[in-house]
Amino acid sequence: MTFPEKLNKAVARNNSLLCIGLDPDQDKLPAGVRTRDNPVLYFNQQIIDATADLVCAYKPNFAFFGSLGEAGWPTLKATLEHIPASIPVILDAKVGDIGSTAEHYARMFLDELGADALTVNPYMGQDAVEPFLKRREKGIFLLCLTSNKGADDFEKQHLEDGPLYQRVARKAREWSPAGNCGLVVGATQPEAIQDIRALVPDRPLLVPGVGAQGGDLETAVASGQDACGGGILINASRAVLYAAADANFAAAARQVADQLRQQINACRTSSD
Amino acid sequence: MTFPEKLNKAVARNNSLLCIGLDPDQDKLPAGVRTRDNPVLYFNQQIIDATADLVCAYKPNFAFFGSLGEAGWPTLKATLEHIPASIPVILDAKVGDIGSTAEHYARMFLDELGADALTVNPYMGQDAVEPFLKRREKGIFLLCLTSNKGADDFEKQHLEDGPLYQRVARKAREWSPAGNCGLVVGATQPEAIQDIRALVPDRPLLVPGVGAQGGDLETAVASGQDACGGGILINASRAVLYAAADANFAAAARQVADQLRQQINACRTSSD
Repeated sequence: MTFPEKLNKAVARNNSLLCIGLDPDQDKLPAGVRTRDNPVLYFNQQIIDATADLVCAYKPNFAFFGSLGEAGWPTLKATLEHIPASIPVILDAKVGDIGSTAEHYARMFLDELGADALTVNPYMGQDAVEPFLKRREKGIFLLCLTSNKGADDFEKQHLEDGPLYQRVARKAREWSPAGNCGLVVGATQPEAIQDIRALVPDRPLLVPGVGAQGGDLETAVASGQDACGGGILINASRAVLYAAADANFAAAARQVADQLRQQINACRTSSD
Repeated sequence: MTFPEKLNKAVARNNSLLCIGLDPDQDKLPAGVRTRDNPVLYFNQQIIDATADLVCAYKPNFAFFGSLGEAGWPTLKATLEHIPASIPVILDAKVGDIGSTAEHYARMFLDELGADALTVNPYMGQDAVEPFLKRREKGIFLLCLTSNKGADDFEKQHLEDGPLYQRVARKAREWSPAGNCGLVVGATQPEAIQDIRALVPDRPLLVPGVGAQGGDLETAVASGQDACGGGILINASRAVLYAAADANFAAAARQVADQLRQQINACRTSSD
């Protein structure tokens, strides 16, 4: 099954466009979790158990595992193994390097860790993206327009034919006729989401920045959904993971996730 | 000691501007190495032992360790521990993410692995770079103009005030008055190296693409050296690592590395 097929099935089964970002920060874990053998793994497992019927994908953030040092790899691997096989995993590592190196990142994230999709930085151009694109059963999300302040520095700078991020969107369409190439578009930029959707009517958009980063959910979904009221993944991380700091953290995470899921669905012009 | 100080000392001690990229590809290791307990670690140790008096830095490429799976982290850690303390380590991972995530990459690569410097992708702008810049004792190298074909897709595209890569160079200068921010500039673009050097007279340039990628060494050094005949690190990876495929691989690597070191020095207008 390809990534788009797996994603569409999860969207339909859970009636959800919510993606939960697994950014487990040791410093923010509930006190009761910190005494466990592997606090980060236990926390992730509890969050996954509490939300797996509410999401269309999980997005583990590699940096939050890497910063654990030697424990990072086994913790990430065990976290991924705990995610039900029906829910696609988008590994967020924002990789980008020349072809021979990118091939090693593909082995690392797609083969060794078995992720279904990967976030990729477009700066170095087509040959840095190709080793991921050529794995047609996998998905990639190219960074296009991000939700941070620094997006002004380069992403929004104007080229002869429009801002840089729009060129990235056009290249995503050009490089991947098969459609396994989506885009990362921050929720804090609703007017831009509309422009990008016009450029790539049929590509999935991964939209972080709702919640902790202050994006407007309603505008993001209204601007970013495709013609069928789908094609957009709304990512929430901190707002779900740290919904409560006590022993009820998993139940609280479930409640926030379900609210978000329903809020997103209420903004769709039609749901699956 | 800050990264620039450590680098300058290594440059002077070894009279070298050569940086060896540690991109240990399992498929390319000499047959005799493959039967070792940890072939990649053994290979790296032999290369380091054979070249540590000829280089100004080592640049391990994270992808080539990550693709080893669970063995990746301990192999990378042990490789770094084998590098003499006097030789700076530039970890090549081309990271770039929002501030809170970048902070975790800083912990991973600079604290847990103890690298002296890190390569960083500028696409997401200043706040994605700041968590590294603020560690004043460490160095970063921002991707500016790379040596691959895909550099045409975005890096060389024209903004109102010149190509994107030149804006990256100006931002590197603006963001880091302390000078711990250098640039990655491919050796295959000699005319551009000159432009970049004019924009950042006092920043170190990390120049890959000599050898396997076909860059012209003489032009690169002539265009990229600073006013003192330094400030440029010429990186070679495959040309050194795989100089021979037999039991003499380390001696062959040493020979190629020393030739390169001398060729580079012959191109400098003055040497330290």
